[in-house]
Amino acid sequence: MKFCSNCGTAVDLRVPPGDTLPRHVCPACGSIHYLNPKMVVGALPEWEGRILLCRRAIEPRHGYWTLPAGFMENCETTAQAAARETLEEACARIEIGELYTLFDIPHISQVHIIYRARLLDVDFGPGEESLEVALFDEADIPWGDIAFRSVEQTLKHYYEDRRRGRWQFHVGTIPPPSGHSSPR
Amino acid sequence: MKFCSNCGTAVDLRVPPGDTLPRHVCPACGSIHYLNPKMVVGALPEWEGRILLCRRAIEPRHGYWTLPAGFMENCETTAQAAARETLEEACARIEIGELYTLFDIPHISQVHIIYRARLLDVDFGPGEESLEVALFDEADIPWGDIAFRSVEQTLKHYYEDRRRGRWQFHVGTIPPPSGHSSPR
Repeated sequence: MKFCSNCGTAVDLRVPPGDTLPRHVCPACGSIHYLNPKMVVGALPEWEGRILLCRRAIEPRHGYWTLPAGFMENCETTAQAAARETLEEACARIEIGELYTLFDIPHISQVHIIYRARLLDVDFGPGEESLEVALFDEADIPWGDIAFRSVEQTLKHYYEDRRRGRWQFHVGTIPPPSGHSSPR
Repeated sequence: MKFCSNCGTAVDLRVPPGDTLPRHVCPACGSIHYLNPKMVVGALPEWEGRILLCRRAIEPRHGYWTLPAGFMENCETTAQAAARETLEEACARIEIGELYTLFDIPHISQVHIIYRARLLDVDFGPGEESLEVALFDEADIPWGDIAFRSVEQTLKHYYEDRRRGRWQFHVGTIPPPSGHSSPR
């Protein structure tokens, strides 16, 4: 952030009175601009024991496989976000189930959450952000070509929980890749 | 948002190519400015069956009681955010437990999450944003003076789960107050 989104003046970076962290502060109108983590919300759509994955047509991770997921929009719920992303990326309709995983990813200031979901029919196909969409049995999951670690870990939890016959909510943290230097 | 935070030019509100919603788009540098929900993260600190509450010294809901909670910062985890807010608002140190509740509040584009936590000692007191901090038995909870519905519902779940002797993760949606008109 370089300019005040309220009045267009160049912002300063300083600690406001009573605060503990540097913020982008407008010297003209006094606006304080906070930066907060973003939520990425997705679904794990099941159909007769198989899982729906999308191959990404966009960066990051073009060509890799993911669960349908994306940035949550204002004025929607997490469940609505998961259903919307599934419709956009896989042209698929789902019934949302339990909230299944939550991953903190502090080095990119994101929180990823994934709902279990039931695919309502097999009338699906690639949306604008997908190259292809397909249902996978466990043996066919392209483990070496999964786009994001939150998706990979969600799939691993899914198959472990299914084997144990006990479903639970999982919380985890995704550390930076080795060699990563923090943006601050 | 009225001005581009990247170059200071007045932004337009229009649907970018391939998108489905109007965004703030800069006609000069082409930046697209997305608005996303914010996460509010807090803790439910326990001490020998009692719960730590803070009476708010700031708006909104000045003078009302809340669990320690606040906006998550970039580059931290949800558990770190809960511990930091507890330290800031109640000068209290906690051990974070299970993620306990998640509330969608779409009419204000927020997601609230609360962790169960164990107070490490009773050396606590009001931080800058609190008028007072105290431990409450169930019979003394000021139900009529709780600041936020997500906090009230978290406390209700806590006492219900405790009575049943079975703890579970709860997900819910807080609807707009009656008479509320949506910002979009």
